Amino acid sequence: MKNYKIYAGGTFIETSQVLEVQNPFDKSIMAKTFLADKEILNIAIEKAIAVEQELKHMPVYQRYEILQQIAFKLSEDKERLASILSIESGKPIRYALGEIARAIQTFTIASEEAKRLPHEYLSIDWTPAGHGKQGVVKYEPIGLIAGIAPFNFPLNLAVHKIAPAIATGNPIILKPARSTPLSTLELAKIINKTSLPKGAVSILPMDRETGNLLVTDERIKKLSFTGSPQVGWKMKTQAGKKRLTLELGGNAGVLVSDKADIDLAVKKCMIGSFAYSGQVCIHVQRIYVQESVFEEFTNKMIEATKKLQVGDPMNPATEVSVMIDEANAKRVEAWVNDAVADGAKVLAGGQRKDTFYEPTLITNTQPEMNVCSLEVFGPVVTVEKYSNLQSGIDAINDSQYGLQAGIFTDSIQELNSAFDQLEVGGVIHNDVPTFRVDHMPYGGIKNSGFGREGVKYAMRDMLEPKLLVMDS
Amino acid sequence: MKNYKIYAGGTFIETSQVLEVQNPFDKSIMAKTFLADKEILNIAIEKAIAVEQELKHMPVYQRYEILQQIAFKLSEDKERLASILSIESGKPIRYALGEIARAIQTFTIASEEAKRLPHEYLSIDWTPAGHGKQGVVKYEPIGLIAGIAPFNFPLNLAVHKIAPAIATGNPIILKPARSTPLSTLELAKIINKTSLPKGAVSILPMDRETGNLLVTDERIKKLSFTGSPQVGWKMKTQAGKKRLTLELGGNAGVLVSDKADIDLAVKKCMIGSFAYSGQVCIHVQRIYVQESVFEEFTNKMIEATKKLQVGDPMNPATEVSVMIDEANAKRVEAWVNDAVADGAKVLAGGQRKDTFYEPTLITNTQPEMNVCSLEVFGPVVTVEKYSNLQSGIDAINDSQYGLQAGIFTDSIQELNSAFDQLEVGGVIHNDVPTFRVDHMPYGGIKNSGFGREGVKYAMRDMLEPKLLVMDS
Amino acid sequence: MKNYKIYAGGTFIETSQVLEVQNPFDKSIMAKTFLADKEILNIAIEKAIAVEQELKHMPVYQRYEILQQIAFKLSEDKERLASILSIESGKPIRYALGEIARAIQTFTIASEEAKRLPHEYLSIDWTPAGHGKQGVVKYEPIGLIAGIAPFNFPLNLAVHKIAPAIATGNPIILKPARSTPLSTLELAKIINKTSLPKGAVSILPMDRETGNLLVTDERIKKLSFTGSPQVGWKMKTQAGKKRLTLELGGNAGVLVSDKADIDLAVKKCMIGSFAYSGQVCIHVQRIYVQESVFEEFTNKMIEATKKLQVGDPMNPATEVSVMIDEANAKRVEAWVNDAVADGAKVLAGGQRKDTFYEPTLITNTQPEMNVCSLEVFGPVVTVEKYSNLQSGIDAINDSQYGLQAGIFTDSIQELNSAFDQLEVGGVIHNDVPTFRVDHMPYGGIKNSGFGREGVKYAMRDMLEPKLLVMDS
Amino acid sequence: MKNYKIYAGGTFIETSQVLEVQNPFDKSIMAKTFLADKEILNIAIEKAIAVEQELKHMPVYQRYEILQQIAFKLSEDKERLASILSIESGKPIRYALGEIARAIQTFTIASEEAKRLPHEYLSIDWTPAGHGKQGVVKYEPIGLIAGIAPFNFPLNLAVHKIAPAIATGNPIILKPARSTPLSTLELAKIINKTSLPKGAVSILPMDRETGNLLVTDERIKKLSFTGSPQVGWKMKTQAGKKRLTLELGGNAGVLVSDKADIDLAVKKCMIGSFAYSGQVCIHVQRIYVQESVFEEFTNKMIEATKKLQVGDPMNPATEVSVMIDEANAKRVEAWVNDAVADGAKVLAGGQRKDTFYEPTLITNTQPEMNVCSLEVFGPVVTVEKYSNLQSGIDAINDSQYGLQAGIFTDSIQELNSAFDQLEVGGVIHNDVPTFRVDHMPYGGIKNSGFGREGVKYAMRDMLEPKLLVMDS
Repeated sequence: MKNYKIYAGGTFIETSQVLEVQNPFDKSIMAKTFLADKEILNIAIEKAIAVEQELKHMPVYQRYEILQQIAFKLSEDKERLASILSIESGKPIRYALGEIARAIQTFTIASEEAKRLPHEYLSIDWTPAGHGKQGVVKYEPIGLIAGIAPFNFPLNLAVHKIAPAIATGNPIILKPARSTPLSTLELAKIINKTSLPKGAVSILPMDRETGNLLVTDERIKKLSFTGSPQVGWKMKTQAGKKRLTLELGGNAGVLVSDKADIDLAVKKCMIGSFAYSGQVCIHVQRIYVQESVFEEFTNKMIEATKKLQVGDPMNPATEVSVMIDEANAKRVEAWVNDAVADGAKVLAGGQRKDTFYEPTLITNTQPEMNVCSLEVFGPVVTVEKYSNLQSGIDAINDSQYGLQAGIFTDSIQELNSAFDQLEVGGVIHNDVPTFRVDHMPYGGIKNSGFGREGVKYAMRDMLEPKLLVMDS
Repeated sequence: MKNYKIYAGGTFIETSQVLEVQNPFDKSIMAKTFLADKEILNIAIEKAIAVEQELKHMPVYQRYEILQQIAFKLSEDKERLASILSIESGKPIRYALGEIARAIQTFTIASEEAKRLPHEYLSIDWTPAGHGKQGVVKYEPIGLIAGIAPFNFPLNLAVHKIAPAIATGNPIILKPARSTPLSTLELAKIINKTSLPKGAVSILPMDRETGNLLVTDERIKKLSFTGSPQVGWKMKTQAGKKRLTLELGGNAGVLVSDKADIDLAVKKCMIGSFAYSGQVCIHVQRIYVQESVFEEFTNKMIEATKKLQVGDPMNPATEVSVMIDEANAKRVEAWVNDAVADGAKVLAGGQRKDTFYEPTLITNTQPEMNVCSLEVFGPVVTVEKYSNLQSGIDAINDSQYGLQAGIFTDSIQELNSAFDQLEVGGVIHNDVPTFRVDHMPYGGIKNSGFGREGVKYAMRDMLEPKLLVMDS
Repeated sequence: MKNYKIYAGGTFIETSQVLEVQNPFDKSIMAKTFLADKEILNIAIEKAIAVEQELKHMPVYQRYEILQQIAFKLSEDKERLASILSIESGKPIRYALGEIARAIQTFTIASEEAKRLPHEYLSIDWTPAGHGKQGVVKYEPIGLIAGIAPFNFPLNLAVHKIAPAIATGNPIILKPARSTPLSTLELAKIINKTSLPKGAVSILPMDRETGNLLVTDERIKKLSFTGSPQVGWKMKTQAGKKRLTLELGGNAGVLVSDKADIDLAVKKCMIGSFAYSGQVCIHVQRIYVQESVFEEFTNKMIEATKKLQVGDPMNPATEVSVMIDEANAKRVEAWVNDAVADGAKVLAGGQRKDTFYEPTLITNTQPEMNVCSLEVFGPVVTVEKYSNLQSGIDAINDSQYGLQAGIFTDSIQELNSAFDQLEVGGVIHNDVPTFRVDHMPYGGIKNSGFGREGVKYAMRDMLEPKLLVMDS
Repeated sequence: MKNYKIYAGGTFIETSQVLEVQNPFDKSIMAKTFLADKEILNIAIEKAIAVEQELKHMPVYQRYEILQQIAFKLSEDKERLASILSIESGKPIRYALGEIARAIQTFTIASEEAKRLPHEYLSIDWTPAGHGKQGVVKYEPIGLIAGIAPFNFPLNLAVHKIAPAIATGNPIILKPARSTPLSTLELAKIINKTSLPKGAVSILPMDRETGNLLVTDERIKKLSFTGSPQVGWKMKTQAGKKRLTLELGGNAGVLVSDKADIDLAVKKCMIGSFAYSGQVCIHVQRIYVQESVFEEFTNKMIEATKKLQVGDPMNPATEVSVMIDEANAKRVEAWVNDAVADGAKVLAGGQRKDTFYEPTLITNTQPEMNVCSLEVFGPVVTVEKYSNLQSGIDAINDSQYGLQAGIFTDSIQELNSAFDQLEVGGVIHNDVPTFRVDHMPYGGIKNSGFGREGVKYAMRDMLEPKLLVMDS
């Protein structure tokens, strides 16, 4: 069995706390790794702080080259890395390959943005008080970043914290999910071979108690957390003086207007609903279809759902596989069954086997059912009718969450109205809310988050403006 | 009769060449002013150059205050100024008031943009060669500007040259149209009362020979010309080392799709077609309507055309009045008559009386007719059918011009396709090509122009980037 | 005695809690006003939320005109307003007039920035996943803002919260300091006469308990606090899901190199040290002078200090007057006396009379003395020697604070080194850290603050990015 | 002997006009290639226009990948390419390798900037006229570009036209210098292997008459010329409606203040004066040294000049080698001899042997001597005294040219004053005017040029803004 040392302050180490990594598809233990404790975390913090000045003064071309090298080495080894990612997470290999490609893209964007920090030149003489003066605002690294990444995109969502940190000259300590630490530990090996100062990046799985120190330790200047709303919002009250980015979940909705291309809507909704068994922050959970096209849309969705290839994630043909663990599969099962008990109707799927839950389409739901109001994080989607656009928009907004939403339509008025009113961080036209490219601003409002990621946007929050006013 | 001295190098003077300004509505001589000759122009040039350094070093808050003062004084006197403008140009007073409001807005925008020159801070260390260095790009005034303004917006199109010049710290010599010099000479009085150094602005009507020196004199660093394509393009070959902006004419087209709001389209097309008797660079000259709504649209246009209030420009109710002179009215008459002789059909209007030409709607035209292919610059619009969007786009593009175009539709696909394919500087959705606000980039492609105006855009071309690379 | 109603949700009201406003110079009660309680605050919150949609959809030109009107009306009434400000705060009238001018400038800048929200167009097709798509990021108002303003710039530091809120389309509830509420209540009258929807701005003096609700109420989306570090940082842990800007204090330092213009340094340091009795966040508290010019600099400072005009704040000749209250004057007295007891030497001043504390120059201090290590917020400045620039920089950085710092030098190397190393939000060359113009980014690091003000920068944190990805 | 086909409209062809390429060091014929005639040029133009739509619609990621591929392939083959470049141009191999590295960098920058075209989102509702509307400005390719490159940086100065053209989606026809066509023909082979549509790039050596068509042909929308002022400025009058960028020469000056690091100044001036025998647009031609350090500086320069390694360009130790041809060497010899005849004094060098001219230092020159007033484009530099900074600045400005200038000083006042007053496109602090990195704006004023290169800046002038105003 493979042994993965953890990466603490520039050194690969083992600890006394062993963490076994399970393949969620066949339940085998695929590798073992280790948990960091407080002392190891403390070493990582000290080593990180020790290199802050060096990182701050590293010229742009060096930051660029380090980030390019990482991208290049990920690219060279992408199939092996995708396999590891697929096995640890149960993610179908087609999507695991996609995630590696995105992580490469994220590092590439960061390398380019490192050249383009938002330094400004300011005229100061807008009033007589500023006569004879000019200003420059430079953006400096803020100091040590802590990142906490989730299991569902174990590599790319960690990279969305690591790459901006390197690009801005900040050290970072990254805690991967305990179920899926291997992809980032592979990344650690790649980073360790670059000329990035040792200590600038640490990758440390850790127990919850140690993990809490990432929130409370005052030497850490920013925490970037991707995970559940409950945990995230609590962190905000405990974070002391540090900055915070929270990327939390949602129950994303889609509108399908009678001015839409229905076949396109079905094709996109299938992916948005069931890719990686719906274990995606911007998974399509609620579809609202205009009455006159509801039946056509629903029938095509049912048909397409039945054709989905389910099976071993390592099989290239597989479209849907297991969930991350049985507890989650059971939770989803319970929610669907509760909904049915309260009057909902299953149009397709609805059965669980071990960690596998069938791609499931429900209708006749009520907004207060768990499958509507909470984040299902599983392969379940509701389909309901709406009469006019306004009622569709209202239905989507009837939620504590606000991450992204989609709308299928060819009408400018409908798109403008939806964009204006939908209470979300992003509206996607003629596509599902699941749409994301790595350079776009990404993040939610309401309970779905605080701040934005998307390389340039994440970088901005890792920088401190510093003004120079000087004689002109 | 009122006597208007011309404004040369900071002094109001008379010359031996008297210019009488005629009221095109009643043919009376409303005022006299003067033409500058070469010697006066030379004095204006020398005085302008003498204040270049002072203008360059004027702090932002002073440029701002001068521009704000001008805007304020225009505002205080707007009704009197609108009358003068209306009488010298024959422009209905409602539109003359609108032009004064726009000139105020143009100065206001310029005052704000003076604070926001596009100075940049640059990281220089993208390669080892730049290690330890940083850069600033400051934008400096280029030097003396010459502006040539047309009769149709005698104030605001001059202001689109004067205000950016002041905002960027450049002196300017402005030649108004000989038919409409009074509005800008009124402006000269306002400018003269500010603390702008004398010589920074000259307003000089001049004969053609003297005017040609604006093109050829090497001390002038930029020429900004608004006028006819024939004259403009010739200037480009004679302009020596100077920069050039050409705002020339067009034969703007509109598309009315069957996905449009027809009443809105009619309402907007009426204004675009007939405001100031079509003597507008972005006057609606060609309307293409999708077959299924052609009859509805055309009938409503005919009806609306018949209701237009024609008469004395000084009457607040007047919507359409005389053209700038009889020669132009006769030219328009001839073009329409030629078209009719070749098979076109007049739907409304079509008659001339002295300098007045009726608002005229024609159909059954051919692309090669003058009313289609040349710039009609009169109250004439053609209306033709199109079967599918592509043929409508092709019809608009079948022109030597490319200033702006309009499209009425609610379809995203149609709007995207039109925007992509229309060969123009600007596409206006759900409005006529005649739409312009003073801060938007404005200018044409093909034979319609070279460069852009719209305050910020005009300013950019009056600035020279100057790079400082310094130790960091 | 004048009676000032408070401005709650668009209505001027009285409450049962009377607040008497004292003139700190002659101890008379100059006016009475009122404190809001929880119920009144609740009404203000509800009225604010009721107009959020209207504010969000208000077109740019309306926001602009409202802000311009406010600036205009402040300008018309500036002398009377300055008197009120001077009397309530004990600020010399010359500085009170300056503050009114700055508040006008702050509103003017906000009016301009309202036109220039940082909306972006994004290419989305950086990878095949984005093919055929394009993006727009619009910045929407986040919702209700709470502002808490201090006594020392009772008008302009409130305006730095109110003007950006209006410019971004957010409602705001502003709590002025209890000692100096009148300037902002005068502003409330001006705002009330504009077309801003009633409820968009409330100005509410309040007791501490009610004030705490500004921190904890979940309907408030952002808190912007200017005040003491102790209070500010505690708020961060109590603020729930809301955003936070903290503008806290400092103990700002200045470096005077032997490559400096000493007379300039003395002139600027006098103002930075003693203007408004040092009750300024960026008051010069610590001066470090290179050895070879220490004696010259110190002697000139002593001489200048002795010449300062002290007296009634309403006297135009007065340069220094009373402190805000006797408690603060006594605190300053105690700190200076403690320093002297521990070996410091008073070079000038050092005596208190009631609320007046003399402009005071001390040397031979130790970094751990209160006059060095805490925020003195009084007319006291320390002057110490440094041997080389590095030790001077280290001395300034030996502080829990980091707001702004100044350096007087003609050396590029020295300026670069100081800018790189000084741990502050802003470095001011050839001027004191007290330098501020209202459009520059302003705020501290370390214990001095969180986030930035300066109109554009404050506005950014009152906006939520909203992404639209659409077919291209 | 190697045979290089030319690259016309996507095809490598031979023509009837053979062009022999001579090694300027040993006079051997190193290769033969061909000249295009009018018909071949016409084919290239037609093929270019045929792919304009395809290029315009190519998604960003494809443009990016093509540019990255070219950079990568240049990198893989850099030593061979540097040899070819060195041999055809006589450029020492150390500098030839540097040029290849820069060409790689230029393509890399262009690939990144292709993602970042300056598309804008505009608020339109600054006045009631724009209520309910919003704007987007997209930047579209303008159409076929013609580039004319000089012999001295045969690869990178061509790449500064080709890479921006590809990045902006424009086809380009590039005419290399007849003496050094091989580097770009090697580049043609690399480009031909990418997926760039055939016809998008042509590399065509041509006779003068055919070359003139690049100036006059109306199908070409922009001409970018790097070469001599005489030729360049004449083109401006012949270019018809097309845009123009002129990168012409200069007689760049350097100031060495008594506040400078003299050893640094000497080291940098040696490279700036003699690299590639001064055949560089921003070659250091005139050095002005403050009196008190003149002797020290001059002595160190003389000493360093004597130590320069001269010889075969292919020898890695060689610092200076032959000039491009004997005619130029003779011209330089004549100019120096004329100067000496008129009183100048040679401090080092001054002799010619065939195409080799010694690195030469002169003093006691007069501004009107050819070695001062014209562009020497050879290994000759003048060194003169100045008493105060102003006279040094005036000396540099006493020139028809204005490309770049350098200043060595540690004084902020001196740097500010020099930057303000020097009449050049760029001022380089503590380095020579010869400094250039490929992303900085580069170009001259006065007779030195028109417009700017530097990837982003070159791209801007290859784009046409296109405004969309749409319902919001």
